[in-house]
Amino acid sequence: MDEIREECGVFSIGLFTSGKRNGFLAHRVYSGLLALQHRGQESAGIAVNEERVIRCHKGMGTVQEVFDEDTLQHMDQCSIAVGHVRYSTSGVSEPQNAQPLLVKHVKGQLAVCHNGNLVNSDKLRRELELSGCIFHTTSDTEVISYIITRCRLKTESIEEAVSLAMDQLKGAYSLVLMSPAKLIACRDENGFRPLVMGRREDGAIVFASETCALDAVGASFERELQPGEIVIADGEGVRSIWTHCGRKPEKLCLFEYIYFSRTDSRLRGLSVQQYRRESGKCLAREFPAEADAVIGVPDSGLDAALGFSEESRIPFSFGLIRNRYVGRTFIAPEQETREQLVRMKLNPVLSAVKEKRVVLVDDSLVRGTTSAYIIHLLKAARAAEVHMRISSPPFLNPCYYGTDIDSRENLMACRHSVEEIRKIIGADSLAFLPLNTAKSLCGRGAHPDVCTACFDGDYPEL
Amino acid sequence: MDEIREECGVFSIGLFTSGKRNGFLAHRVYSGLLALQHRGQESAGIAVNEERVIRCHKGMGTVQEVFDEDTLQHMDQCSIAVGHVRYSTSGVSEPQNAQPLLVKHVKGQLAVCHNGNLVNSDKLRRELELSGCIFHTTSDTEVISYIITRCRLKTESIEEAVSLAMDQLKGAYSLVLMSPAKLIACRDENGFRPLVMGRREDGAIVFASETCALDAVGASFERELQPGEIVIADGEGVRSIWTHCGRKPEKLCLFEYIYFSRTDSRLRGLSVQQYRRESGKCLAREFPAEADAVIGVPDSGLDAALGFSEESRIPFSFGLIRNRYVGRTFIAPEQETREQLVRMKLNPVLSAVKEKRVVLVDDSLVRGTTSAYIIHLLKAARAAEVHMRISSPPFLNPCYYGTDIDSRENLMACRHSVEEIRKIIGADSLAFLPLNTAKSLCGRGAHPDVCTACFDGDYPEL
Amino acid sequence: MDEIREECGVFSIGLFTSGKRNGFLAHRVYSGLLALQHRGQESAGIAVNEERVIRCHKGMGTVQEVFDEDTLQHMDQCSIAVGHVRYSTSGVSEPQNAQPLLVKHVKGQLAVCHNGNLVNSDKLRRELELSGCIFHTTSDTEVISYIITRCRLKTESIEEAVSLAMDQLKGAYSLVLMSPAKLIACRDENGFRPLVMGRREDGAIVFASETCALDAVGASFERELQPGEIVIADGEGVRSIWTHCGRKPEKLCLFEYIYFSRTDSRLRGLSVQQYRRESGKCLAREFPAEADAVIGVPDSGLDAALGFSEESRIPFSFGLIRNRYVGRTFIAPEQETREQLVRMKLNPVLSAVKEKRVVLVDDSLVRGTTSAYIIHLLKAARAAEVHMRISSPPFLNPCYYGTDIDSRENLMACRHSVEEIRKIIGADSLAFLPLNTAKSLCGRGAHPDVCTACFDGDYPEL
Amino acid sequence: MDEIREECGVFSIGLFTSGKRNGFLAHRVYSGLLALQHRGQESAGIAVNEERVIRCHKGMGTVQEVFDEDTLQHMDQCSIAVGHVRYSTSGVSEPQNAQPLLVKHVKGQLAVCHNGNLVNSDKLRRELELSGCIFHTTSDTEVISYIITRCRLKTESIEEAVSLAMDQLKGAYSLVLMSPAKLIACRDENGFRPLVMGRREDGAIVFASETCALDAVGASFERELQPGEIVIADGEGVRSIWTHCGRKPEKLCLFEYIYFSRTDSRLRGLSVQQYRRESGKCLAREFPAEADAVIGVPDSGLDAALGFSEESRIPFSFGLIRNRYVGRTFIAPEQETREQLVRMKLNPVLSAVKEKRVVLVDDSLVRGTTSAYIIHLLKAARAAEVHMRISSPPFLNPCYYGTDIDSRENLMACRHSVEEIRKIIGADSLAFLPLNTAKSLCGRGAHPDVCTACFDGDYPEL
Repeated sequence: MDEIREECGVFSIGLFTSGKRNGFLAHRVYSGLLALQHRGQESAGIAVNEERVIRCHKGMGTVQEVFDEDTLQHMDQCSIAVGHVRYSTSGVSEPQNAQPLLVKHVKGQLAVCHNGNLVNSDKLRRELELSGCIFHTTSDTEVISYIITRCRLKTESIEEAVSLAMDQLKGAYSLVLMSPAKLIACRDENGFRPLVMGRREDGAIVFASETCALDAVGASFERELQPGEIVIADGEGVRSIWTHCGRKPEKLCLFEYIYFSRTDSRLRGLSVQQYRRESGKCLAREFPAEADAVIGVPDSGLDAALGFSEESRIPFSFGLIRNRYVGRTFIAPEQETREQLVRMKLNPVLSAVKEKRVVLVDDSLVRGTTSAYIIHLLKAARAAEVHMRISSPPFLNPCYYGTDIDSRENLMACRHSVEEIRKIIGADSLAFLPLNTAKSLCGRGAHPDVCTACFDGDYPEL
Repeated sequence: MDEIREECGVFSIGLFTSGKRNGFLAHRVYSGLLALQHRGQESAGIAVNEERVIRCHKGMGTVQEVFDEDTLQHMDQCSIAVGHVRYSTSGVSEPQNAQPLLVKHVKGQLAVCHNGNLVNSDKLRRELELSGCIFHTTSDTEVISYIITRCRLKTESIEEAVSLAMDQLKGAYSLVLMSPAKLIACRDENGFRPLVMGRREDGAIVFASETCALDAVGASFERELQPGEIVIADGEGVRSIWTHCGRKPEKLCLFEYIYFSRTDSRLRGLSVQQYRRESGKCLAREFPAEADAVIGVPDSGLDAALGFSEESRIPFSFGLIRNRYVGRTFIAPEQETREQLVRMKLNPVLSAVKEKRVVLVDDSLVRGTTSAYIIHLLKAARAAEVHMRISSPPFLNPCYYGTDIDSRENLMACRHSVEEIRKIIGADSLAFLPLNTAKSLCGRGAHPDVCTACFDGDYPEL
Repeated sequence: MDEIREECGVFSIGLFTSGKRNGFLAHRVYSGLLALQHRGQESAGIAVNEERVIRCHKGMGTVQEVFDEDTLQHMDQCSIAVGHVRYSTSGVSEPQNAQPLLVKHVKGQLAVCHNGNLVNSDKLRRELELSGCIFHTTSDTEVISYIITRCRLKTESIEEAVSLAMDQLKGAYSLVLMSPAKLIACRDENGFRPLVMGRREDGAIVFASETCALDAVGASFERELQPGEIVIADGEGVRSIWTHCGRKPEKLCLFEYIYFSRTDSRLRGLSVQQYRRESGKCLAREFPAEADAVIGVPDSGLDAALGFSEESRIPFSFGLIRNRYVGRTFIAPEQETREQLVRMKLNPVLSAVKEKRVVLVDDSLVRGTTSAYIIHLLKAARAAEVHMRISSPPFLNPCYYGTDIDSRENLMACRHSVEEIRKIIGADSLAFLPLNTAKSLCGRGAHPDVCTACFDGDYPEL
Repeated sequence: MDEIREECGVFSIGLFTSGKRNGFLAHRVYSGLLALQHRGQESAGIAVNEERVIRCHKGMGTVQEVFDEDTLQHMDQCSIAVGHVRYSTSGVSEPQNAQPLLVKHVKGQLAVCHNGNLVNSDKLRRELELSGCIFHTTSDTEVISYIITRCRLKTESIEEAVSLAMDQLKGAYSLVLMSPAKLIACRDENGFRPLVMGRREDGAIVFASETCALDAVGASFERELQPGEIVIADGEGVRSIWTHCGRKPEKLCLFEYIYFSRTDSRLRGLSVQQYRRESGKCLAREFPAEADAVIGVPDSGLDAALGFSEESRIPFSFGLIRNRYVGRTFIAPEQETREQLVRMKLNPVLSAVKEKRVVLVDDSLVRGTTSAYIIHLLKAARAAEVHMRISSPPFLNPCYYGTDIDSRENLMACRHSVEEIRKIIGADSLAFLPLNTAKSLCGRGAHPDVCTACFDGDYPEL
């Protein structure tokens, strides 16, 4: 329940049809970023090309806080626009870390948007500094920009520079970047983070982190980028560089299915919502409970809860109401209990809970504190029993690929058995979705091709 | 689906325990108003007493936009605080119409918060003007303040003035008001709008439009105010004036059950969520459909949809995803279709809809345009059939008691038969909940004691 | 030196030529108010008529802070516009006290702008409250609006209502007000505050507190309003009501010459700058000093200093530099001395001061603290001697007519002799302009027709 | 009259006394920057060290717009603070170009503030880019930061890096920079831009562009930095590196005397005000006029006008009043004449001008348009004659050292003789201060040691 934060979302659009004057591209990116807002709410930004010069507007806050009509209108006259929403996983939360990162180098300008996390950025940064480089930000994106720029000196084109740079970049990266004339998208060789391609009827080509952002701009889904693929779109058309494809096993982040991606997105052809509903069904089969009602923690636990209900035939119920007007900056008296704070966002429905045995479904459990508060709320509303079901395996290892799944000290499951956790959070029973079940739901049979490092410590070789 | 707007929400708190220095009352009102934000998002305000002077802070926008920590802290040292969130039903949307309305009169100061709509405000305003009164606002609240103030000249106390004023006020009003020393709440003789009383463990007495706001400040529900009741809270305790009670039949707005109130609130002992779920069950019984999935229009149609699913045994599904990051000020290119705009907020889930016969449940249908767009979205996602079910009767008459249910020209059901509407919105079948069914769900048997004027034109005598 | 604050400034314009569509009237008022900004910087506002409805925009801050291009453009399409800048003399500094005050009454709307101070406003307010009136503000303007509104009930036209109201209003008031069709200006019977009329080449008629505001909008000066005069401008032309003229002796505020009015304005045909220069010459004649340089406290003391220099033949010098970028909200560490704060605004020029005997000229002395700091600054810059000359008489009485000249406790001259003041502020000599001299400079011979109550306690009969 | 813009102002302070906890250093820099605000109003910024990490706050706008109390308080706990105000001479006006520039490099962090303009920045930038550097800004400051950073790799300390870097930097630069532990100031070998050192009584060492900023923070002037000097202040004390001193002839910008520096500053021991007054006297001697009044264009022409008056015995007069409330963002109707715009800022005083022969003194003449408007205003106020005197020589060449004196096409004197200019601007006579006179006023006899390139094209060898 909102305890883990996704890293970032990227969106870009190019419209190279010569006749077209105003494709409202900045407005499109705005719409696309809004659809990806769940992937990052700390900062937002858009860069566009204007008569071969790239201009950028970005700021701290949500897409709607950063952009107004005036700003968008002044950026609409372009053939390429790239955008970004961000949480900070590496790099502190400071204005200069907002993306797109716009840099000038010897062959021109470059705007870079990055979703993911490099594992060798410290090493690369140190090498660059030792050769006299200075850094304005603490983000991986600046390292990536440097590497691409350096490669650009040895190559004929920006796409070749990207290709050359990929040899040095280790870790997770789904990138969209633009030169004044080219829109480029690429995905790391393991394909940790999703990246899809779509097309609008007016001919505009779109790259986005998730399919729901294609829907948001009226683009039809074309395909996912392959792990390692580079796609170039410009006045000449759309083409790919495949040289980095197939070098490494695909490792799409399993947690994209479980929590990060929006429920109306599709990952490798599979509906995210369907995955979650199935995970709830599996929980019901593997860890049934005698109960009167199934409740999901809104919004991320609702799909699995519905699946649990379908399988178990225990009625599904909206037993917790989320106040959707409570924004990030909620103010409370200092002495207020954490419980009261949770209550401002989540309120139990008495009639749905009172004197009932409740199955409570959530997508994950990190520190366990929020789960404890919710269970306490339900019991205060006189729920007879609370059986907690988590639609993911326990977190046992930190993630290095672009999420903030934390060091082991903060992961409750590292320090406690399931039974201990149950006691601490005050549940009457507790179960997690087994990892094998979670993997099997990806619909790829024996080769789920997903990264499960945070669950089993099986970090991909990079 | 968000087409009808509630008028207002009121919240107030008084803490008269002498020893207590800082009861964080402004913070409490802030929390209470946040819980009532669905009742009005145009303006928000809080007034507090400070050493016998009333101070007020208000502005255009949501509670979180209008208030920051600093402002609240500077208002916390008080014994009474009243607050208001507002849509404009009478009175245009202008800053000076924001509430609480703070006035000075011969016996002191008064801050007034009003939920409802007077039916004789034009007459009263005219009479006041003819006696030389000037008006700064176009809101009923100023008329009410004048009437109370005039009555204050002839009475010994502010509560007597309120009582005397009630003889002149016709229509719907749930009021909370404060003098520097007293907190007063009252409800019109028909009880059109809800108003409840609660108490916190620290002894603070709370009045609020809905029970969910009591939950939000950790207050336990005590009781609803009776139609016509005046409750006074001050250093002497809590007492009521009952002289206006029982004069007229109770006429609680039926639409509070159907749409206005939050699903976790309770009205006259009945869970709002339960009402809505039952209404969905009735629809399923009275207007069944052969279908593969039941979908609710989020968020207001979800409860009834779940009820429909339970009764019909057709699986419930989250087939439409609401982007909860899209605020009121969404920006789109001018040429953008209205359909695209709806899509920014609502996106169908392909796997839930494709090639399926869908029952689509919404709480009401006003102009019909949004319903048409949603059905179009579902069909574009290749829904095989869309059977629309509305969990309220058709609107046939304007409301004069504090909602913006409009003149007959804008009410689709006034100009078209159900079959015609079905064709216009593109549904494969369409049904509304019959009025008698809706009334029977209130749980009061032969005397539902609700106002149904917007459905049947049965305007209460006032 | 900025210790006394003027009350307010008013500006209005009407353009009734039928053919004209857009006279940019809101822009004109903006320009006019900017020219009057020295008369009030706490709030600013403009009201305009639009298709017979009056619309108002106002806020806290300077004209440039309150208005932007967008706001002005949306108000330009009108035939009448009135505006106001304000300090609070009566009425605390709160948003709702900002003017124009826009009220609705039985015969329509009224926007009122007031410069001055009523002496019987408490009495009027009490009477109104006793008849049931409520007040939203603490300003005299609301009282005036009430009185006019009540008179309107008994009269045929708004101008007659104003005329009738004048019988009840006691004290200082220069008003501009508008109904949806008429622009009205009037001045109290004593003419305490200035009010002038001008005309632009496009036919627009202008009323303003000072002639410098006519210059600012390219209007030529036509004449001052007579004390007691009411001028009405509308589609029928321009006409006056003279019934209140000549009833009382003229009492233009002498301090308008000395400090309030802008140096490029003209009062009753006399250049304000010339008055101030002559006052410096008189000081030089009556209180000469042996010195090497004459320095004025910028900006208000510069004219008199120049006059002193001319008469005494001691060279004038810009010995104190004012930092014109330091706005009202200057921030300093809390422990900072008041002296350091003054220094942020005023810095002595070493070469102009060092080892020199200096004559320091300022327009007035209220509490004496600022003068003491300035003299200390000059001595720290090694001025050999500082001879202070004040171009006004000592303040001995509070003002009740619209300035914040304070109660006697705060007026240094009430508690100390000139010699004592000299010692306290650290000057080597000190002299004030005698009252008779000050009066004689008005150029009206034996009958200067000015209010000198703050100097001699000779309060006009009202 | 405000036609030429200074480049930038720098201010810094270090307080290394170990015992001291809070030296209010951020507040001090704020005060210092306010005193230097005339040198740049586009952006402002402050960087401070905090536990060996440098933190920076900057933004577009004036010092008072960018900083509030809260921000300053959170930056006060430091031992070093550097600040900057900026106009863009090289580098467009964009947020990322605001200074201080904060960079991270292999040996740590660096914050750099720059006043001046490099002449070889394009070359340096190109070389850096060719070695793979990327640029985030278009300002020289980033180039300087790179060069210093690269030198840092080869040296033992930051001061040695600065010294080494100076071998590569060509042009005008007065720098203040900080590492987490050291405050460093340096001046280019020609000393184009001023830079002074002072000390507060609490032991804080201060570097500032002008002496007026020392006064503003209560620091006493110690000395100017020598051209080529590097001063280092840290916990060990204050010391200099002199190796770059004496290599090149001193070339202090002559226009600092004429216009850029504040009139209460001192340059090389000479009072700026005195220089300007003397220049007026010289004009009166060399180009006398038969006239009744001498008027200066406020504020920059006032000193020279006073000098002209003193020498010619023609009375000085404040004949033009500047509205000091008109900020940068003045709004006017689009069809408004440029003349009306000038009038909003400058209004002639009728009594001072009417039927008089006027000498009008301004500091410089660039495009001539503003002068023409002012003369037109004076003639419209019925000045009998206007004799224009410019207290600087005509501009004939662009400046490459940090001012925006423009390309020859925009310099009126490049395309027209003095007589032609006189006719164009409508003056009755016109004269410029001869260059030799201007140079002789610097008080250095045969070797004025000033840069006069913009007047005579004598660009210093670099």
